[in-house]
Amino acid sequence: MKVTVTGAAGFVGSRLADALLRPDSPLPVTELVLVDTILPAQRTDSRVRLLALDLRAPTAANQLITADCDVFFHLAAIVSGQSEADFDLGLAVNFDATRALLEAARRNAPSLRFVFASTSGVFGGELPDVINDRTATMPQTSYGTAKAMCELLINDYSRRKFLDGRFVRLPTVSIRAGTANAAMTSYASGILREPLNGKEAVCPVRRDQKIWITSPAIVVRNIIHAATISADVLGDWRGINLPGFAVSVDEQLRALKEVAGEKAVALVRFERDERICHMVESLPIKFDNSRALSLGFVVDTNFADVLKAYIRNELNKSN
Amino acid sequence: MKVTVTGAAGFVGSRLADALLRPDSPLPVTELVLVDTILPAQRTDSRVRLLALDLRAPTAANQLITADCDVFFHLAAIVSGQSEADFDLGLAVNFDATRALLEAARRNAPSLRFVFASTSGVFGGELPDVINDRTATMPQTSYGTAKAMCELLINDYSRRKFLDGRFVRLPTVSIRAGTANAAMTSYASGILREPLNGKEAVCPVRRDQKIWITSPAIVVRNIIHAATISADVLGDWRGINLPGFAVSVDEQLRALKEVAGEKAVALVRFERDERICHMVESLPIKFDNSRALSLGFVVDTNFADVLKAYIRNELNKSN
Repeated sequence: MKVTVTGAAGFVGSRLADALLRPDSPLPVTELVLVDTILPAQRTDSRVRLLALDLRAPTAANQLITADCDVFFHLAAIVSGQSEADFDLGLAVNFDATRALLEAARRNAPSLRFVFASTSGVFGGELPDVINDRTATMPQTSYGTAKAMCELLINDYSRRKFLDGRFVRLPTVSIRAGTANAAMTSYASGILREPLNGKEAVCPVRRDQKIWITSPAIVVRNIIHAATISADVLGDWRGINLPGFAVSVDEQLRALKEVAGEKAVALVRFERDERICHMVESLPIKFDNSRALSLGFVVDTNFADVLKAYIRNELNKSN
Repeated sequence: MKVTVTGAAGFVGSRLADALLRPDSPLPVTELVLVDTILPAQRTDSRVRLLALDLRAPTAANQLITADCDVFFHLAAIVSGQSEADFDLGLAVNFDATRALLEAARRNAPSLRFVFASTSGVFGGELPDVINDRTATMPQTSYGTAKAMCELLINDYSRRKFLDGRFVRLPTVSIRAGTANAAMTSYASGILREPLNGKEAVCPVRRDQKIWITSPAIVVRNIIHAATISADVLGDWRGINLPGFAVSVDEQLRALKEVAGEKAVALVRFERDERICHMVESLPIKFDNSRALSLGFVVDTNFADVLKAYIRNELNKSN
């Protein structure tokens, strides 16, 4: 099975690649193409092929999606903060490049299983108390707008059997290892990751601001799981809100104190950022994930466990 | 006030143009540009300028939207049946051309009031019993998909103050004068219009199939009204489901019998079309229009009155 991952140099993409290469991968991968604008990290596995490619290049989609492609994980994106700062770049990468991939699949590989990483940021504005897979998408960011447009197109391409698409809406992934990115929700990792590394961190939102999150390990399992589900089960709407859980800044800092002491928590400084507050406040924090769970997707237990897993698996690497 | 109407040779577009030229028009029109792929009908009003233009032409949007434009009614579209038959054409006209207009407004006329004719066909699939302005759009046609993508973009362009957009979702317009078009809901006019003209008509759906409709006169009033509402009132979502009412084939034929006798009804032949049945069954037939009504939009009283208005205003013209 030939599998491709875009955004494979990114935090989630590289972990997805690693998971696909493991012996217990739910997909029998025989060739794994890892694509990003910069060359993804080298791996000692003969199945891996690395590719540095800008998806905006006119030939990129046709180069990537050929008749022998079986599963395509499309994770490459311009994140929320950068999409707000550069509208044209965000739309070109997040929408136009995705559309070109769908079109290439239609022409070259109509049975391609196309898994698209969407976002819970497609929701926003005046929301119901509880979000489900069929709640209206009224994004309040250009990032969420482009993702929601891709969702519609993927659903229509799938309905017309131009390809076999499905999209998963990711909660904010925390804790991300590495360095801060331009996502507006980046603080949700930063206020933990930096203090664990002995560094100061700035929290731009209120202590009681909740956010809907998933751990990296769980989100990677769920993204792969999305590729294994039959189209029949998905029915007339190819979208799934991936399971997550709500956690407040206070709850995150309590977990930090529990595993790293008061000294770590003292490294977090509160400095309100109106732009980030406004955007984060527009995000939903309560989902009904029963459909996803019944389809075999999984969920984290609690934030302290997520934090412990980070310390166990990531902290040494990211130092 | 310089006002532009695209799709101005079409059934709704030409009636919109006429209404904008009347002395009681809610918009003080000083120049009215009427655009369509074929030249719209000549009018004896010095304010009118006619233009034959394919919106897919690379320069069309910049030609149409200049700094002096005040209000832009974008009605031009490839209808549902044709969009299903020609996916690429539908997406090019219904989505790409609209996007080009938005982009031209952003560059040339950021205070432009842009009114987009969307459709209740953005809804579909597994629906709640009652639809409102914040029900999820899960279109089951390529037409609805393109319209829903435009809605998202208009909302984001408006949020970013690239223009002042709003979109209205039109119920099926019945009774349309003239000839049948390629919309899948075209029968909802045909089964009345043709018998009134002494011609046979084919009904492709069940007798008890309901459809959500509006009369031409009311929809034109409502489209103009959408241009008069302040952006503040619309808030974080620029979309409104225009008021309509549900009517079944049987109810339509009862009204036909009432005004034109059994002889007219006998001209309607039932011949099931699976493709049309499937699509029409996916459309919602119950809306909560309370927000629209509170914003000053209006609604028809009943189908018999709609039919009588058609006979009074249109029947002679369309013969």
